[in-house]
Amino acid sequence: MSFAGRIGIIGAGALGALYGARIARAGHDVHFLLRGDYEAVQRDGLKVFSPQGDFEMRPPVYPSPGAMGPCDLLIVGMKATDIAALAPILAHTTHAETVVLTLQNGLGNEEAIAAMLDALHSGGTGRGRVIGGVAFLCSNRTAPGVIHHMSYGRVRMAELAGPALDRTRAIAQLFLDAEFGCEVSDSLATIRWEKLVWNIPFNSLGVAAHHADSQVCVTDDELLRVSRGLMEEVVAAARAADGVEIAPAFIDLMMKYTLDMGPYRSSMQLDHEAGRPLEVEAILGEPVRRARAAGIAVPRMEMLYAIVRRVDAVRV
Amino acid sequence: MSFAGRIGIIGAGALGALYGARIARAGHDVHFLLRGDYEAVQRDGLKVFSPQGDFEMRPPVYPSPGAMGPCDLLIVGMKATDIAALAPILAHTTHAETVVLTLQNGLGNEEAIAAMLDALHSGGTGRGRVIGGVAFLCSNRTAPGVIHHMSYGRVRMAELAGPALDRTRAIAQLFLDAEFGCEVSDSLATIRWEKLVWNIPFNSLGVAAHHADSQVCVTDDELLRVSRGLMEEVVAAARAADGVEIAPAFIDLMMKYTLDMGPYRSSMQLDHEAGRPLEVEAILGEPVRRARAAGIAVPRMEMLYAIVRRVDAVRV
Repeated sequence: MSFAGRIGIIGAGALGALYGARIARAGHDVHFLLRGDYEAVQRDGLKVFSPQGDFEMRPPVYPSPGAMGPCDLLIVGMKATDIAALAPILAHTTHAETVVLTLQNGLGNEEAIAAMLDALHSGGTGRGRVIGGVAFLCSNRTAPGVIHHMSYGRVRMAELAGPALDRTRAIAQLFLDAEFGCEVSDSLATIRWEKLVWNIPFNSLGVAAHHADSQVCVTDDELLRVSRGLMEEVVAAARAADGVEIAPAFIDLMMKYTLDMGPYRSSMQLDHEAGRPLEVEAILGEPVRRARAAGIAVPRMEMLYAIVRRVDAVRV
Repeated sequence: MSFAGRIGIIGAGALGALYGARIARAGHDVHFLLRGDYEAVQRDGLKVFSPQGDFEMRPPVYPSPGAMGPCDLLIVGMKATDIAALAPILAHTTHAETVVLTLQNGLGNEEAIAAMLDALHSGGTGRGRVIGGVAFLCSNRTAPGVIHHMSYGRVRMAELAGPALDRTRAIAQLFLDAEFGCEVSDSLATIRWEKLVWNIPFNSLGVAAHHADSQVCVTDDELLRVSRGLMEEVVAAARAADGVEIAPAFIDLMMKYTLDMGPYRSSMQLDHEAGRPLEVEAILGEPVRRARAAGIAVPRMEMLYAIVRRVDAVRV
């Protein structure tokens, strides 16, 4: 049974617009909050190019959170760097029972959103209304309202507050209806840390090592050694900080997956090359702080954090 | 008693030309091998600007090793990256008893020069005719034949093959005659590793962390933590690889020295900014290989090596 209700897409970029459009095409009631792309999409509609089929649509779009109004489910596709901008948006787009699924990278977004919900609505139920998801997706926004889906698209999701609920499965069904793989997990920490096993080396090391794409990171002998060392630190940090057990074979699997994927420039590299803010706190800062709080040494993660934080600071 | 004999300067840049000119001014027989600067220096002489006094001179200069001919002492001021270019130069500028003092950065230069001497002259005395020196110097070559000495200038030197000899002290006296501090040590490994305690964080981390000068590396909380972590790894590697004991207080001393020095862009940063090759193998690669051979973990040094090696490779 799919989730029934008014669905709002917050952050309709390469990720949010693609998922939203495909869920809408499957017959669900999807509304898009747009900023820069509003006029183009209102005039020309949303265009999706995908190996699973190209299509256009004219969904309901809004230029402001107030115009959009409250939804029953929000799907957040904004950058983790924009998390602070979410609070005033939620003020207009949530009611006391709205569920928020965030597909943002890294650690700490779900907790921040729960706190925002608690600040907006009485009852302290914020933590019970947030779901975290990780997306495995290659997609680009090539022009206002134009999305090119290249490959992948699978989503894993889990409740912030505990094991999966019927509601979680109903939301996952939206993604299945949209012809994406979707898996529901009972442990948000597991899916977040497992994603970091890939993101920390291949998102961040690629930026530190001056435009090294994922293929460089697994074929240059010294960078491969560092990539594996970083993955091992993430596994150790996940265990120490959150009791998450990630099997050593998972590292080998991620290595093979990365080799098979061919040269890939990560979202952080694309942000870096475009002079945009880097998701350094969500992907590195928060994991490093959690490892430190758990008393575990993560020298490679710390060094990568220090370097990428500096790269991000120099940009500003 | 100062060294008496024909002295040749190989690599007459900011470092070699300054030491050579000051030793010549003190009355010694100094000859300069020049490449790009040859015509300018032959026409206008060598100009030195220094807080210890400006001066000009017209020393004997040569456009080729063959024109220069054999010397009794060679002072090598070339970049460590140019080490391979030294072999054909030594073929013309050494005789069977020539002593070579190399002021190049990092590890491995002395051994490489000893092997070159052995390949040129029979008797296998190469290792007994090489001295390694480390220079603490702020100096720039601002135009062909024009050297600006900003500050410092002290040299520490030691024989490759063993404790200091009368010869070592006679060569050190040349630098004292030239009004530079100079210290003779009985352990080349000690002076090389001690220099690396500074060079590895402040030369190399500054490049990895996108143009972070030495002040940034000791005032940004995260970079300071990494700098100290790198220094501790160098101290551990020195002990494991060469039995060199560096006191923990030395790290504090280097930190204080760096804070007091103010913002300083290291030679590797200047090379990076100018698009020149980086001394990555001498300053990072060889120390990492020696630590690995000794079975000691140096995760920060390895990661810095992987990143800076990549930065250098992308340039080419």
